[in-house]
Amino acid sequence: MNSIRDNSLQGKFHRLRSNKAFELFVVGIIVFSALVIGAKTYDIPPILSQIIVITDWFITLFFLVEITIRFIGEPYKRNFFKSAWNIFDALIVIVSLVPIEDSEMALIGRLIRVFRVLRMVSIIPELRILISSLLKAMPQLGYVALLMFIIFYIYGAVGSFFFAPINDVLWGDIAVSMLTLFRVMTFEDWTDVMYETMEQYPLSWIFYVSFIFLTAFAFLNMIIGIVVNVIESENRARQLEEEGEQPNRADLEVQLQHLQASVDELLKRAGSSGEQR
Amino acid sequence: MNSIRDNSLQGKFHRLRSNKAFELFVVGIIVFSALVIGAKTYDIPPILSQIIVITDWFITLFFLVEITIRFIGEPYKRNFFKSAWNIFDALIVIVSLVPIEDSEMALIGRLIRVFRVLRMVSIIPELRILISSLLKAMPQLGYVALLMFIIFYIYGAVGSFFFAPINDVLWGDIAVSMLTLFRVMTFEDWTDVMYETMEQYPLSWIFYVSFIFLTAFAFLNMIIGIVVNVIESENRARQLEEEGEQPNRADLEVQLQHLQASVDELLKRAGSSGEQR
Amino acid sequence: MNSIRDNSLQGKFHRLRSNKAFELFVVGIIVFSALVIGAKTYDIPPILSQIIVITDWFITLFFLVEITIRFIGEPYKRNFFKSAWNIFDALIVIVSLVPIEDSEMALIGRLIRVFRVLRMVSIIPELRILISSLLKAMPQLGYVALLMFIIFYIYGAVGSFFFAPINDVLWGDIAVSMLTLFRVMTFEDWTDVMYETMEQYPLSWIFYVSFIFLTAFAFLNMIIGIVVNVIESENRARQLEEEGEQPNRADLEVQLQHLQASVDELLKRAGSSGEQR
Amino acid sequence: MNSIRDNSLQGKFHRLRSNKAFELFVVGIIVFSALVIGAKTYDIPPILSQIIVITDWFITLFFLVEITIRFIGEPYKRNFFKSAWNIFDALIVIVSLVPIEDSEMALIGRLIRVFRVLRMVSIIPELRILISSLLKAMPQLGYVALLMFIIFYIYGAVGSFFFAPINDVLWGDIAVSMLTLFRVMTFEDWTDVMYETMEQYPLSWIFYVSFIFLTAFAFLNMIIGIVVNVIESENRARQLEEEGEQPNRADLEVQLQHLQASVDELLKRAGSSGEQR
Repeated sequence: MNSIRDNSLQGKFHRLRSNKAFELFVVGIIVFSALVIGAKTYDIPPILSQIIVITDWFITLFFLVEITIRFIGEPYKRNFFKSAWNIFDALIVIVSLVPIEDSEMALIGRLIRVFRVLRMVSIIPELRILISSLLKAMPQLGYVALLMFIIFYIYGAVGSFFFAPINDVLWGDIAVSMLTLFRVMTFEDWTDVMYETMEQYPLSWIFYVSFIFLTAFAFLNMIIGIVVNVIESENRARQLEEEGEQPNRADLEVQLQHLQASVDELLKRAGSSGEQR
Repeated sequence: MNSIRDNSLQGKFHRLRSNKAFELFVVGIIVFSALVIGAKTYDIPPILSQIIVITDWFITLFFLVEITIRFIGEPYKRNFFKSAWNIFDALIVIVSLVPIEDSEMALIGRLIRVFRVLRMVSIIPELRILISSLLKAMPQLGYVALLMFIIFYIYGAVGSFFFAPINDVLWGDIAVSMLTLFRVMTFEDWTDVMYETMEQYPLSWIFYVSFIFLTAFAFLNMIIGIVVNVIESENRARQLEEEGEQPNRADLEVQLQHLQASVDELLKRAGSSGEQR
Repeated sequence: MNSIRDNSLQGKFHRLRSNKAFELFVVGIIVFSALVIGAKTYDIPPILSQIIVITDWFITLFFLVEITIRFIGEPYKRNFFKSAWNIFDALIVIVSLVPIEDSEMALIGRLIRVFRVLRMVSIIPELRILISSLLKAMPQLGYVALLMFIIFYIYGAVGSFFFAPINDVLWGDIAVSMLTLFRVMTFEDWTDVMYETMEQYPLSWIFYVSFIFLTAFAFLNMIIGIVVNVIESENRARQLEEEGEQPNRADLEVQLQHLQASVDELLKRAGSSGEQR
Repeated sequence: MNSIRDNSLQGKFHRLRSNKAFELFVVGIIVFSALVIGAKTYDIPPILSQIIVITDWFITLFFLVEITIRFIGEPYKRNFFKSAWNIFDALIVIVSLVPIEDSEMALIGRLIRVFRVLRMVSIIPELRILISSLLKAMPQLGYVALLMFIIFYIYGAVGSFFFAPINDVLWGDIAVSMLTLFRVMTFEDWTDVMYETMEQYPLSWIFYVSFIFLTAFAFLNMIIGIVVNVIESENRARQLEEEGEQPNRADLEVQLQHLQASVDELLKRAGSSGEQR
């Protein structure tokens, strides 16, 4: 984009932020900040704890400088806030600047520092691509998710109506019922849940087995849907590539028809000269 | 279908039921009825409970009106009952009209109100497509299901013969044995089941491990079968599309042969005029 | 095969065994025999038990008659024993003829009667195809199976060396170690196994996590191998079909070259007649 | 490579190591050494134990001789150490030569003998191909693995911050938190972990359910990524094959254009001779 070397601050910073070494350095700082976060979960002597607090401030400062460089380096300031990743980066940095003294708020401060690890995704292009391809697959999963939610809701309501008197912790209301059903879907001690209700309703195994089959089917459908979509788009891309490179059969046919017309013309003249037709 | 605006009741209702806003409104009422069902699973004060009963009646009434509009709006009354979804809708509405005073029947009444959430599927076209594509995949799974049932039946019978004296709750008869085997298939505390029988029959692990392998294989086969089917139909669709757009090679060959004949004719005449052949 | 109606016993039986109604009747008897087997697993009054014993004899007799009809109906007796399914059928029938009075042998007799349900597979062609397609996929899985066995063996030996003093039931020798590892692979209470050994060897989680990754990977590889194989053979079949129907491009090229030669000949003559070249 | 029979030691050994019977014999010895390792995990009488020690020495000796044959048989000594498998083989043999008397080191000695089973992979070509195809799939999984690690790290840190006071064994520091999360991912008694934290933080189910969804999604993405890659390379290979065999459409078009030019030339001459154009 900026082929001419301009020595303005914007030009310099634009080059700096496209610099591979700078990117690596930022990744390094993020990894270091992740390690600092990890270290905090261990019991550490107070001196080390002090050092960590100071390191933390330096990291926050570095991120502030880095995002400023990115912003100044952007030729068109508007585009900067068009990227969701930039907004995410800016938010993380700004929020971590707010001084938190309160012990209640300390946890939230810690959480924000944890989310700084997510900046790894916004920095490394390959991870950004991975995330956006995941997000792209979302809408086609939307209706399957809705169907699954309906299945969960119906089974949750039925389960709550029948089994709430048996075990209030598992089937008390529709919300905990759905959580219990999620547990059943992951096969997590689902027979304990079943045997309990089978004591009162011996046929309640139908409830569980049918639920497992329905969700497994919906899940299978989802996977197949994605695979088919991927193969389809794969095929389409390949076909477009082929067509771009080579003339298609319709082109060949047009040429053949043209040739036939020419030869017919020849035949007509040959016929008119020899008067055989 | 109805391009001319007729102002008969049928014409009006036909337009109404194709109306997007009307569809959204119906979806809204279904979601609301789902929320009412969910609310019933919580402990609610008697006043709210009274309100819910009244709301319930309004919803039932709305659904009755809606299905009547749909029926009157249908130009050919016969087609209305050809759609399984319409029959399903009508059934749900009619059954929920039956007044239930009995405390025993109350549960069934509640169940029917839960199934009203399923009307979401019959209203939203995308979900209807999803369901019918799932149902279409069923027959090809039929034989795999039969095979799995045979495996379950044989293992269930063998398990019941050998292990019934060890644990009557798990292996008492062929029905509970098959339920236990379903549990083993989902890997749910299957080793507890195994270690118990291994105390008497130390080689009974062969029973479990072979069962897991067989069902896993049958399941794998099923998935692959579906994927292959999907890819196949995908390819076929693509091929048909290609053939529709472009002439195929056989057409090109016919044209070439025609051209060759014309040129041969030319050669013959040139030969006969020059008498070289 | 036998288009002429011959009234010999062999001809009659050959027609009978190809008869759809006869097949359905045999399937019916097999289902009935399966139900009898299932019934035996319940506590039944002695009179019913008596009836079952008699029914059992009738079923055995029927299967004997049926297999005899199949054998006599076969035009070429040799081919009969070439089919593995026929041998399987004959074996099941013959073994169930052996009278078993001994109480010890009674269980084996029961087992054989259970395996009669497997005759369902040998009678219904679709199931036979399913089984043979499963068996066909086996060899390509052979080396993956060998690799997994090597992984299991190595981890089993290592686990036995280190963990046998901790829990002799789970890690006593290489055989039970491999069974324990199979349990870990199915995620069945594997953390209980892990936490126990982590008390003595705090780093033993590496053993379990690496094992889970390795087997998951080998399994993934297996699935992908099968899917690729299936797609490949699918593509090959489609290609062959295409080539059979349509001339390929090489044919078109040969025709074009022939045409060019003819036109060149024309040009030469036109040139020689007009002497312009 | 060596078509001429040279009778030097190198030539002889080169022929020997390519010999199928020799390969089978080596595989046999490896299987035997695996059985010896397995036998050691059982309680065996001291006499048998003595025999095993001697057998062990013979196996070590055999492997030493075999690797020497391989080395001498290699025409270009440098290439020998270019193969990672040869280095692996040599390492296993050399390390197992070191005499271990110490009881502490005995375990390491045993481990090395276990790894000798891995030589099976280096000997059987099909297994070597399997392993290298697995390794080839690794890099494309690298970024998915990184993404999953980030997810684990963030959830591990958050889990450790909040849940460490509840259960120090499961959530004490970030390392054990990540191990606990791995357990949750395998659905292993994850509800026990959840119910414990839900007592203090009733909304902590969001933590677990979102984690399960995120990892399941990343995993799904991984599988699809591999499948797509495999199909893509499959298609590419098929396309190349097609292009190699047959002329492409562009070739046909060039030939047609050439033909058209010839016919045009004919027409021009016919026109000039008859003066009609």
